[in-house]
Amino acid sequence: MGFEREIKVRFSDTDPAGVMYFPRFLDRFHGVFEDWFDEDLKMPYRWVLEDTRIGFPTVSTSCDYLGPFRFGERMVVTLDLVALGDRSFTCRYSARKKGEDAALVVAEMVTVVVNLDSFESHPMPAPLRKALQARLVRSASADQKVAG
Amino acid sequence: MGFEREIKVRFSDTDPAGVMYFPRFLDRFHGVFEDWFDEDLKMPYRWVLEDTRIGFPTVSTSCDYLGPFRFGERMVVTLDLVALGDRSFTCRYSARKKGEDAALVVAEMVTVVVNLDSFESHPMPAPLRKALQARLVRSASADQKVAG
Amino acid sequence: MGFEREIKVRFSDTDPAGVMYFPRFLDRFHGVFEDWFDEDLKMPYRWVLEDTRIGFPTVSTSCDYLGPFRFGERMVVTLDLVALGDRSFTCRYSARKKGEDAALVVAEMVTVVVNLDSFESHPMPAPLRKALQARLVRSASADQKVAG
Amino acid sequence: MGFEREIKVRFSDTDPAGVMYFPRFLDRFHGVFEDWFDEDLKMPYRWVLEDTRIGFPTVSTSCDYLGPFRFGERMVVTLDLVALGDRSFTCRYSARKKGEDAALVVAEMVTVVVNLDSFESHPMPAPLRKALQARLVRSASADQKVAG
Repeated sequence: MGFEREIKVRFSDTDPAGVMYFPRFLDRFHGVFEDWFDEDLKMPYRWVLEDTRIGFPTVSTSCDYLGPFRFGERMVVTLDLVALGDRSFTCRYSARKKGEDAALVVAEMVTVVVNLDSFESHPMPAPLRKALQARLVRSASADQKVAG
Repeated sequence: MGFEREIKVRFSDTDPAGVMYFPRFLDRFHGVFEDWFDEDLKMPYRWVLEDTRIGFPTVSTSCDYLGPFRFGERMVVTLDLVALGDRSFTCRYSARKKGEDAALVVAEMVTVVVNLDSFESHPMPAPLRKALQARLVRSASADQKVAG
Repeated sequence: MGFEREIKVRFSDTDPAGVMYFPRFLDRFHGVFEDWFDEDLKMPYRWVLEDTRIGFPTVSTSCDYLGPFRFGERMVVTLDLVALGDRSFTCRYSARKKGEDAALVVAEMVTVVVNLDSFESHPMPAPLRKALQARLVRSASADQKVAG
Repeated sequence: MGFEREIKVRFSDTDPAGVMYFPRFLDRFHGVFEDWFDEDLKMPYRWVLEDTRIGFPTVSTSCDYLGPFRFGERMVVTLDLVALGDRSFTCRYSARKKGEDAALVVAEMVTVVVNLDSFESHPMPAPLRKALQARLVRSASADQKVAG
């Protein structure tokens, strides 16, 4: 149901212990977020930032690392929208090895809408709200995360 | 009381919106963690990894971003040990602008002890346990975070 | 003729000036190098490193940046093998915008073969030499770059 | 004689082979460049970018990697200005291990002056030219590198 993307673990993603360095997951997940805007929401992320001066800073992240990803492996990331507030929304990211079922890294990230020049909170544009509402996952877990 | 370190926000830490990119905080905080091992715990982080084959993967992170850091600013990071379990421990990181009091970014990261060759859980070496016990912050908030 | 790969410029690839940060090109080009091993040379890069303990450190790089890449743009990178020595080889990377002809960023990187445990020079394995010889670009410019 | 800066090699600077990942040197050297503006040229790098809208993109880099730096080691970087043109200048960076003499990584980077809004070439501001002229290293090698 969620937006899915395959990512190859790069040499430079991994640390001297031979596994993907933990902050890199958040960076890679943000790449999936960008693709989600571009390809699923059909609101090119760059266009939003540059033309409307509306930005989407991440204000809260949590991430559990249940197992390692090694250099050269293929990771499948699923993005689900799990909470939608007036000026914020929360995406959940699950990463598993290609061909396997178990999620090894799971994160939630809360995004707010701001005016990029002032960094003040900004109402969510109506087309974005509509696109998000259509994708909101209704679940017990989502109900517990009422964002902004 | 905690271990404190000053960090300069680099050009390459910041994103097109002009502020420090959110995953970079976790990377920078890990640098403070390395210095804490080297300079406060007096157990050189590299020595631990290479000579004993014991490693410290991060298994859980949470981070709240209350305000932005801009390129060129100086950030003061305070590391406090807030939970200590049998095979894991939790550090809290607070980042504020130099000369200001308000914490703008606050993270907690749970670290486990593993054998680097098997990535299996490994008992915490006694000297490390002793060093950590002496630094554990006793607080209501820490009591709620009983790790591993 | 060369090995070609399309790359999307990510938010985190770009700097406060809004363009791809110059060291990131070398990192992205190394990703193309990894794919070249995996998909064209058919010698999985990770397997080479882990199973044979042979590594390929980069010992020299040069890069000219003729024009910027912006966040969200698609870059097409072409890898050509332009020199082959006894224990080293040189790849040239050209990056252009998708749908355009002009190369905007051009790099050459010299790779050596080493034993990963000693970091001493190591003879090039015969299957690798054979695969490289079949891909060597014969050109005036390549002749001027006789590597190691 | 040049501008000197000590840098600690971080866990996240190093790759699965246990040594500093080659593009990271260029990033770290750019950090020294920023400090040089801030502390030696006394022209805060951020102020220049934000207030004057003049920027300093890197248009050419070359780097030789003669030996590895490992995680936890301390690197001493020396920046020398080796060429000064009308609209560009070239810095050389030499990195050696603390306490040792031999340069292990040596790079040259050519910087141009541009208007950040158009990315068109921009005349070098007089105070910057004056500051650079006073620091130009006169050497045979510098004479061979006449920039822009």
